[in-house]
Amino acid sequence: MEKKILLTHCKDASGLISKVTNICYKHQLNIIHNNEFVDNTSGHFFMRTELQGYFNDNILLNELDQALPQGATRKLIGPNRKRIVVMVTKEAHCLGDILMKSYDGSLNVDIAAVIGNYDTLECLTKKFDIPYHLISHAGLDREEHEKKLLNIIEQYNADYLVLAKYMRVLTPSFVEKYHHKIINIHHSFLPAFIGAKPYQQAYDRGVKIIGATAHFVTNDLDEGPIIKQDVIPVDHNFSAQDMAQAGRDVEKSVLSKALNKVTNDHVFVFGNKTVIL
Amino acid sequence: MEKKILLTHCKDASGLISKVTNICYKHQLNIIHNNEFVDNTSGHFFMRTELQGYFNDNILLNELDQALPQGATRKLIGPNRKRIVVMVTKEAHCLGDILMKSYDGSLNVDIAAVIGNYDTLECLTKKFDIPYHLISHAGLDREEHEKKLLNIIEQYNADYLVLAKYMRVLTPSFVEKYHHKIINIHHSFLPAFIGAKPYQQAYDRGVKIIGATAHFVTNDLDEGPIIKQDVIPVDHNFSAQDMAQAGRDVEKSVLSKALNKVTNDHVFVFGNKTVIL
Amino acid sequence: MEKKILLTHCKDASGLISKVTNICYKHQLNIIHNNEFVDNTSGHFFMRTELQGYFNDNILLNELDQALPQGATRKLIGPNRKRIVVMVTKEAHCLGDILMKSYDGSLNVDIAAVIGNYDTLECLTKKFDIPYHLISHAGLDREEHEKKLLNIIEQYNADYLVLAKYMRVLTPSFVEKYHHKIINIHHSFLPAFIGAKPYQQAYDRGVKIIGATAHFVTNDLDEGPIIKQDVIPVDHNFSAQDMAQAGRDVEKSVLSKALNKVTNDHVFVFGNKTVIL
Amino acid sequence: MEKKILLTHCKDASGLISKVTNICYKHQLNIIHNNEFVDNTSGHFFMRTELQGYFNDNILLNELDQALPQGATRKLIGPNRKRIVVMVTKEAHCLGDILMKSYDGSLNVDIAAVIGNYDTLECLTKKFDIPYHLISHAGLDREEHEKKLLNIIEQYNADYLVLAKYMRVLTPSFVEKYHHKIINIHHSFLPAFIGAKPYQQAYDRGVKIIGATAHFVTNDLDEGPIIKQDVIPVDHNFSAQDMAQAGRDVEKSVLSKALNKVTNDHVFVFGNKTVIL
Repeated sequence: MEKKILLTHCKDASGLISKVTNICYKHQLNIIHNNEFVDNTSGHFFMRTELQGYFNDNILLNELDQALPQGATRKLIGPNRKRIVVMVTKEAHCLGDILMKSYDGSLNVDIAAVIGNYDTLECLTKKFDIPYHLISHAGLDREEHEKKLLNIIEQYNADYLVLAKYMRVLTPSFVEKYHHKIINIHHSFLPAFIGAKPYQQAYDRGVKIIGATAHFVTNDLDEGPIIKQDVIPVDHNFSAQDMAQAGRDVEKSVLSKALNKVTNDHVFVFGNKTVIL
Repeated sequence: MEKKILLTHCKDASGLISKVTNICYKHQLNIIHNNEFVDNTSGHFFMRTELQGYFNDNILLNELDQALPQGATRKLIGPNRKRIVVMVTKEAHCLGDILMKSYDGSLNVDIAAVIGNYDTLECLTKKFDIPYHLISHAGLDREEHEKKLLNIIEQYNADYLVLAKYMRVLTPSFVEKYHHKIINIHHSFLPAFIGAKPYQQAYDRGVKIIGATAHFVTNDLDEGPIIKQDVIPVDHNFSAQDMAQAGRDVEKSVLSKALNKVTNDHVFVFGNKTVIL
Repeated sequence: MEKKILLTHCKDASGLISKVTNICYKHQLNIIHNNEFVDNTSGHFFMRTELQGYFNDNILLNELDQALPQGATRKLIGPNRKRIVVMVTKEAHCLGDILMKSYDGSLNVDIAAVIGNYDTLECLTKKFDIPYHLISHAGLDREEHEKKLLNIIEQYNADYLVLAKYMRVLTPSFVEKYHHKIINIHHSFLPAFIGAKPYQQAYDRGVKIIGATAHFVTNDLDEGPIIKQDVIPVDHNFSAQDMAQAGRDVEKSVLSKALNKVTNDHVFVFGNKTVIL
Repeated sequence: MEKKILLTHCKDASGLISKVTNICYKHQLNIIHNNEFVDNTSGHFFMRTELQGYFNDNILLNELDQALPQGATRKLIGPNRKRIVVMVTKEAHCLGDILMKSYDGSLNVDIAAVIGNYDTLECLTKKFDIPYHLISHAGLDREEHEKKLLNIIEQYNADYLVLAKYMRVLTPSFVEKYHHKIINIHHSFLPAFIGAKPYQQAYDRGVKIIGATAHFVTNDLDEGPIIKQDVIPVDHNFSAQDMAQAGRDVEKSVLSKALNKVTNDHVFVFGNKTVIL
């Protein structure tokens, strides 16, 4: 007996739940969890079905294709752990959290490699017996640097690229190669404090809460589909530096919660939003 | 076109989602939301289905009865607002919150009447043009008092009895009459601080968080199925009285969130637990 | 024996706590609570001292003036409840919350009057025996309307004006008259979603959290010193309307927490920020 | 210039703040932060003062002794990082979190050593170049085992012993040796679910929230002064195992927040409670 996850996504129509679950039933697959959502504004249907049984993938998918409206997407995903490549600059907190959670089993991922544009985090990465690639951007233009990055990334065949405080902007052509496969942690409660030095901005504005946002990366900087956001309270006692320190806690917590949802196949991307089932 | 909610609950078996949604599909009912849960420990299946269309209740329920395993419960619930009777003693905060939220539409209930064993809250109740019945317990034994309560309650034909800081214990025979229809707000994070003076107990123990619990009332005092719990932080600055004041905020918030779930038919009671879909 | 609160605010210098508490000590005033804060960036000192004893206000303030640096502010505030005038448009939730909390004692304010530019909330206000003034803006330019507002407001001699979902922008000359005396609840987590229809903006952006901000009103729209902010989680299930409904809960909670801090004299305004002691 | 923290604790009397800050002022010490609290129930005074300047410790403490009531405690604590010894059994999450936060600087401690009664966590500890001592309890009675533990612990001269999911009960004589120096993370929201298998208990009770408690260890099991508590929401979807997994997140978060407060000298223990300034 295997466990697989079926993700279905199409224009809404009547009887969709019935059609899909009927086919699973005929295949003698047991439905462990089933979650569906209809976005009434756009008329789209999303369903995540956790199945258990003996799978005949081709026949199952074929029958689903026949039953679902034209243009439907359906994916049947096996239970393999997702492979991620983590990209970093100098800050340790998000990488450290991912390394430890992968180590103790609270994140269900394999870290294939870590790539940094400085060597600051090499030592930390190697403690966990994970390859670290230093790809400095020094003296390179953006395209040259990204070409070197891609050479490394491609050899790992990762499911997702995780920007764990990677502080350089990626070019549209890079982003396009990993469409909805790049997850970034943004150091603010988007859409507040877009751009540089968000904690200084937050301090200057005298806010009473600071936040973090994990999102898929698209070509519009800081504008991709949001996966997870959270906040923590601050007050007049916090300097801009204190806010940044407090922000680190919420950044790593938000990033690992987002990774958890994405790598366990709970997340649909639709337009510039996510549906999390 | 009408909206109704179908609640299905039975022993788990394969194909249940498919069978139920198939029948809805054949009746040309549109599924707006569908949530299901299987409790794997006990092997029970729960499903809540929001439907829209033209209903032929009898035929629909008949077909469901045929399709579902023996012993299944299914209820088709119309869109009427639930009627509640609120029972109180002297504290205003929970009653006030329910009155105001019913008034401004954020609680979807009709308050048929308020019953108090003191007259303290009569004036507040009457501001909202709701009948207030003073049923003093003075000089009465428990059975005599409850008999008078029941005389009043029965005439209102309420869906739920809400104990909004009603400070007297109800007898088993009273509770039995309103099986899973009585909702209580308990002034602590159950199962901590069971019994009297929970805020004094919390203060003496030096806790850093206090909570509240909304639950259905069963014969075991403070032991019925929990619907909602929440907490707020406290610290050494809080006297027992401050904790009680802070507790009021969380009590009323927890009670109204629980009422919201119950009166919109999201809550299944199963054994001594709730499943909220 | 009386209780009073001493608020001290000046340029930082060494020995300030010692000087102030020394004077209180000499006056045989008991310090119940003392909180101080030094903003190291600007070098400003803030202290809030709760005192108990027999007060000779003039002598006490005189001695403080001698001891404190030039330009210091110190206020000795008696235990009287603050008087507020509430301004509203059509939405009931914030006004209702303030009315009920004032009624049950969880807000320590007297509501002198409610002023609305529609009659929608007249009935609710009068339930609590509070005068309601309908000052319609129909057919009036902004200055004419505000003149009529001021005529009413002035007669109540209020400590604070509370904009409880008052949906019109006030002119600079109006705001100036009530410098740091006007408290507004903004329907978003400032500085995100400044301007109109924040919940529609939040929905379009696909955020996972929505918030509210209570702030003093200054001439820059939505830019005054922030008193309190809070958020609640939302997800793909929330329509823009659902977000607005959820937002109401956080709006009223944030507004009443801010009022609680302001009306119990915990809030210093300094530049465009607040220090809350 | 140095930074030190002065902790003062004595019976309340009038003029205490003034006396202490006066002495600091005379020593030309700059008060960076000052927090005080009077517990009105017991009439005790607590003050934490962050000072900057040139210290003459002996004279300063002498003058304080003269000024303060008999029986007063005052401690002047330098800026050295605290040394901790961590005791573990098999679970990695709390130890991993402490190791990583000490590594990336978000916990201000030096981990002198880790002691385990199994070898499960040896590999993880050694990644961070910290000595690991396996002191198995196999075949030993409690006193023999603790004697071996003490032999190791004593050589490290630690400020605090941290029980990071150390699953054995300590004897009164062991606890007495480290009075208010042993910090434990308890896997529940005390005083709920005292004793074994708290997550199974929580699951059986159908709670909607689970929590964790960090506390000083005293002879009464699970009864020492509470430092920090927090909770996370759970629902019917959580098995007892899921609750345990979710509990791990809140356990490590609560433990590291408690450690942060203790090791930065914010915590007074008074009776069976803590005052955190």
